Amino acid sequence: MMLVTSGAVAFGKQRLRHEILLSQSVRQALHSGQNQLKEMAIPVLEARACAAAGQSGLMALYEAMFTQYSICAAQILVTNLDFHDEQKRRNLNGTLHELLRMNIVPIVNTNDAVVPPAEPNSDLQGVNVISVKDNDSLAARLAVEMKTDLLIVLSDVEGLFDSPPGSDDAKLIDIFYPGDQQSVTFGTKSRVGMGGMEAKVKAALWALQGGTSVVIANGTHPKVSGHVITDIVEGKKVGTFFSEVKPAGPTVEQQGEMARSGGRALATLEPEQRAEIIHHLADLLTDQRDEILLANKKDLEEAEGKGRLAAPLLKRLSLSTSKLNSLAIGLRQIAASSQESVGRVLRRTRIANNLELEQVTVPIGVLLVIFESRPDCLPQVAALAIASGNGLLLKGGKEAAHSNRILHLLTQEALSIHGVKEAVQLVNTREEVEDLCRLDKLIDLIIPRGSSQLVRDIQKAAKGIPVMGHSEGICHMYVDSEASVDKITRLVRDSKCEYPAACNALETLLIHRDLLRTPLFDQIIDMLRVEQVKIHAGPKFASYLTFSPSEVKSLRTEYGDLEICIEVVDSVQEAIDHIHKYGSSHTDVIVTENEKTAEFFLQHVDSACVFWNASTRFSDGYRFGLGAEVGISTSRIHARGPVGLEGLLTTKWLLRGQDHVVSDFSEHGSLKYLHENLPIPQRNTN
Amino acid sequence: MMLVTSGAVAFGKQRLRHEILLSQSVRQALHSGQNQLKEMAIPVLEARACAAAGQSGLMALYEAMFTQYSICAAQILVTNLDFHDEQKRRNLNGTLHELLRMNIVPIVNTNDAVVPPAEPNSDLQGVNVISVKDNDSLAARLAVEMKTDLLIVLSDVEGLFDSPPGSDDAKLIDIFYPGDQQSVTFGTKSRVGMGGMEAKVKAALWALQGGTSVVIANGTHPKVSGHVITDIVEGKKVGTFFSEVKPAGPTVEQQGEMARSGGRALATLEPEQRAEIIHHLADLLTDQRDEILLANKKDLEEAEGKGRLAAPLLKRLSLSTSKLNSLAIGLRQIAASSQESVGRVLRRTRIANNLELEQVTVPIGVLLVIFESRPDCLPQVAALAIASGNGLLLKGGKEAAHSNRILHLLTQEALSIHGVKEAVQLVNTREEVEDLCRLDKLIDLIIPRGSSQLVRDIQKAAKGIPVMGHSEGICHMYVDSEASVDKITRLVRDSKCEYPAACNALETLLIHRDLLRTPLFDQIIDMLRVEQVKIHAGPKFASYLTFSPSEVKSLRTEYGDLEICIEVVDSVQEAIDHIHKYGSSHTDVIVTENEKTAEFFLQHVDSACVFWNASTRFSDGYRFGLGAEVGISTSRIHARGPVGLEGLLTTKWLLRGQDHVVSDFSEHGSLKYLHENLPIPQRNTN
Repeated sequence: MMLVTSGAVAFGKQRLRHEILLSQSVRQALHSGQNQLKEMAIPVLEARACAAAGQSGLMALYEAMFTQYSICAAQILVTNLDFHDEQKRRNLNGTLHELLRMNIVPIVNTNDAVVPPAEPNSDLQGVNVISVKDNDSLAARLAVEMKTDLLIVLSDVEGLFDSPPGSDDAKLIDIFYPGDQQSVTFGTKSRVGMGGMEAKVKAALWALQGGTSVVIANGTHPKVSGHVITDIVEGKKVGTFFSEVKPAGPTVEQQGEMARSGGRALATLEPEQRAEIIHHLADLLTDQRDEILLANKKDLEEAEGKGRLAAPLLKRLSLSTSKLNSLAIGLRQIAASSQESVGRVLRRTRIANNLELEQVTVPIGVLLVIFESRPDCLPQVAALAIASGNGLLLKGGKEAAHSNRILHLLTQEALSIHGVKEAVQLVNTREEVEDLCRLDKLIDLIIPRGSSQLVRDIQKAAKGIPVMGHSEGICHMYVDSEASVDKITRLVRDSKCEYPAACNALETLLIHRDLLRTPLFDQIIDMLRVEQVKIHAGPKFASYLTFSPSEVKSLRTEYGDLEICIEVVDSVQEAIDHIHKYGSSHTDVIVTENEKTAEFFLQHVDSACVFWNASTRFSDGYRFGLGAEVGISTSRIHARGPVGLEGLLTTKWLLRGQDHVVSDFSEHGSLKYLHENLPIPQRNTN
Repeated sequence: MMLVTSGAVAFGKQRLRHEILLSQSVRQALHSGQNQLKEMAIPVLEARACAAAGQSGLMALYEAMFTQYSICAAQILVTNLDFHDEQKRRNLNGTLHELLRMNIVPIVNTNDAVVPPAEPNSDLQGVNVISVKDNDSLAARLAVEMKTDLLIVLSDVEGLFDSPPGSDDAKLIDIFYPGDQQSVTFGTKSRVGMGGMEAKVKAALWALQGGTSVVIANGTHPKVSGHVITDIVEGKKVGTFFSEVKPAGPTVEQQGEMARSGGRALATLEPEQRAEIIHHLADLLTDQRDEILLANKKDLEEAEGKGRLAAPLLKRLSLSTSKLNSLAIGLRQIAASSQESVGRVLRRTRIANNLELEQVTVPIGVLLVIFESRPDCLPQVAALAIASGNGLLLKGGKEAAHSNRILHLLTQEALSIHGVKEAVQLVNTREEVEDLCRLDKLIDLIIPRGSSQLVRDIQKAAKGIPVMGHSEGICHMYVDSEASVDKITRLVRDSKCEYPAACNALETLLIHRDLLRTPLFDQIIDMLRVEQVKIHAGPKFASYLTFSPSEVKSLRTEYGDLEICIEVVDSVQEAIDHIHKYGSSHTDVIVTENEKTAEFFLQHVDSACVFWNASTRFSDGYRFGLGAEVGISTSRIHARGPVGLEGLLTTKWLLRGQDHVVSDFSEHGSLKYLHENLPIPQRNTN
């Protein structure tokens, strides 16, 4: 690690100002005033004096900081001439290497006190000549001389933009290739330091030619973790990275554009054509089975080789003939329900004679679906996007790379039969999920498929893009005092034990106080013991028992396992209050024979799904009869609860007139609004 | 400005470690190793040695930093005893005042090299005695001694939490009143510095009693602008503010809770009852006219007195009898449409025998509506919330404070007739809009009503809460080669000139190339000249003309005024591409007599509203016949285009069974899913 630093002149300016103030006559001082003095311009010549005066203070500052970490620093002052003389260059090189060998950080600066002013246009010509006229060129020169791996140029801007920052379309360039140089317009200079962005880019290109990678980034407001250098060294997407090698594939921005236009083309196909694509994809999944399983085997071998994945993860990662067959069956179901999705008329209104309004369903636009190790997610999600006419960006887990690649190729093959191959894109670039979540101009909706941790992370990372996904399912079952003995154990067992890992499995059983110490209560506990469910006691429940199970840590826990919390309530109202306080508005159930109590519960519980005498596990798109399931949403807008294809749709309004203008409908106009509801043309449902 | 600083011991530790390393024998050094040395515990006694060794380095660091801003610093070391002796105290006081008078920043630290270890429990008893045992108590002592206005305690946590940070329900306390002390549980100590949070709070309370305000905040990751001290001094909501005075009203968090429970009560009323409330509010607006206008007059006088508001703003701010009357009429319309909102059944499915699923509309929850200077917004928005059964937080402009207060009182009076007074809350606390936008646990949807700048600002500020609102309306009209001469000028005039400030007014006229230099084209230009519309030329249009109007700066401009951009396109496809590239997906129109071209345009343009031979100005909830208008949304999820009451609704799923469990429906189960669509009970529409 070597540092090239600015700051000596700024440091010195302050000191010299002070001295000038002291050496002025009182009259001069009064005349110029404190403020004027502060803004006093320092003539060019004085810059050298400033540098000399400031250098010692600057070094003292660095020493003080590094001392905190037991790191020793050394000062190196160089001039342009030191690089021209072969002998001097070798000396400098040797000194720096010796310092680095001793774990001392060299702090390098131009020897501004003695160096002549830089000649314009005399530098950066060709590969072998660079004149050191500012810290950017000095750093580039040193980086090449010392064969460093990486040169980090910190500035007060985010990096290099494709047009002057602040202008309409200015976009940060993530990776800059030398060949693209002409596409950049340079804006005004950076506020601090001597080198503007143009000088930095020139220096960066020079260093790149010399074999050093370069990053230009913002040092003052770091984007990711708050530690810009660490982020860069960890390979995160910070600032602009200069690279000689242009990757073969498109950038993620280009993929977004392709998904947008491909999706638009997809949306204008006939519903039958979209269904045909999905059927073709289903065929390919079974026809190309061997190839798919071969690719999947590679993923499995690599995962096992690295020993990274636990057994359940390996199970999710692995594909099989039967998995592919049931996947194909699922796809055909999606194809069937796709007939009913895009272009459905929801509302028709006659606004005036010959002025008719229609609200129709249309795709949302471009979806980003992020999924973890399950490769079978890919064709399923692709089919949903195709059925709803949306463009799709897919970001899968690295561990399933081979499987995802072949499944994506087959998807594009299926899309090709109607010339919309590009509607579904697989993101292969190094972009982190967080980086994708920031592309609000490209993506209209993010759907995370995976653990609730993934969903929460993405909800946090998404800036301005809506996210559809449930983050938690803390489901309750309230057993009323008028519950039927026969039903309860059946309902509790199914809700808790049938598949405890699901988000719609039961977490908390709320029991009416009257049921304590009844045979019914004992039956429930016996059943839970037989099923080996670990019981946690809520605070009230614990207080009722002489010997109680361990008290629950938080009433807001999602177990995802054979564990349950039991709590006692005094009334249906208390049950509702408990659910509102600790629940996640996912699925909540009442068990009672009293219809009035049940309806009170159904009306008052503010959750996506509220059930009466039915298992929590019914909360599911397939069981609800929605056809394909997109997911279960605990969000309160757009779609809530189990979401079918309509969750991937929005609407647009079509108005067909003759030459209608609103001024005709004004107070003194000739027309009046009719606002007649018109019948909606029926397609067959199911 | 005075500084009380930590760091001397840490600074010294590094130095002493180094010295110990040097004075060890080689064997010792090899045995212990560098790493072990780093983690070597420094015995208690050595802390004083560290302080002595570190103090000079610490001061050098401060000097170096302050020198950059031409600020002189001075070192003051004090001990506990300096405060016990009256004479010494007076000396210290005098020294500090003298330094401050000379614009020198005193940097104060305990003289750790000579001070005895603090006696536990000997400090902070009563008002007059505080022993200086750490920097927190030292700072509190000095703040009171020097009668400072504000003591800022910077730590590495955000402030004071109501339970240990990191625990389930931990919430930052914005304002802490001494009487509330018992409600706080202290967690573990801060990682840096000697004083844990408990010590800081004790010191803060002591300083508060002595007459100094206190803020405890995070110094390392500032929340708002990145400059924590500036933010605090500007009164922004940063960290925990300690105050003796408890405000009379509820906090915004309490208001959110009240709106939530009030809204839930509102939602369970009968539709007729909600309508009744709105009718009553409409009555109050006319009955209490004089009082309302009196309050409004106060606002107007204050605004004029301050000379802050421009004429159009004053116009928006002012109420009148006729405004109130038409407001009342609007409210009665909302009351009428409210019958159809909450509890509407959208879908019914028979899942199995005696297992029926119902999807019904329910309120979203709690809405936050932010509106600017128009006080008439308040009853209108309140009526919409009441009609849809939502809780409501209102945040109005300061300039309308008097009007808003009376209008809110009347709203609560109307709500009282069915005991749901608290469903609508007016936020009067000092919270900035940005602070409200962070309350994601309290608020489900934010609706900004005002300028598109306001909408954009709020979309930026909202963290995890959806925002409904259009940020821009860049509307296009494409005049096809087969357009009818008679219609065009009519449609263009209405779209552009009828009310140019509206978001649905026309921005860009796209003309088919064949129409250039035809009489039709001249007619359009003549009309625009007569209407005094300023014409901007798109680049292609400009290239076709010998003398063209000034070229447009950006094809993405929303004028909001009598200005229009004209551009030339070669085909309907090029028009669509232009709209997709430069439009805001709000409202776009085609003018043509060719139905095929029109349908192509209607199908392919991806905007919320797409019209054929009709003015852009029809894009409006009232004109669409949606009853009450919530706003026009350019978002792609939830609601799009003109939004009626249904934009304030979501759905929930009700499932009524007997004792249904999903395991009965498994592959080998006894039951099969029926998924029969059931008829939906019809209420009368309109």
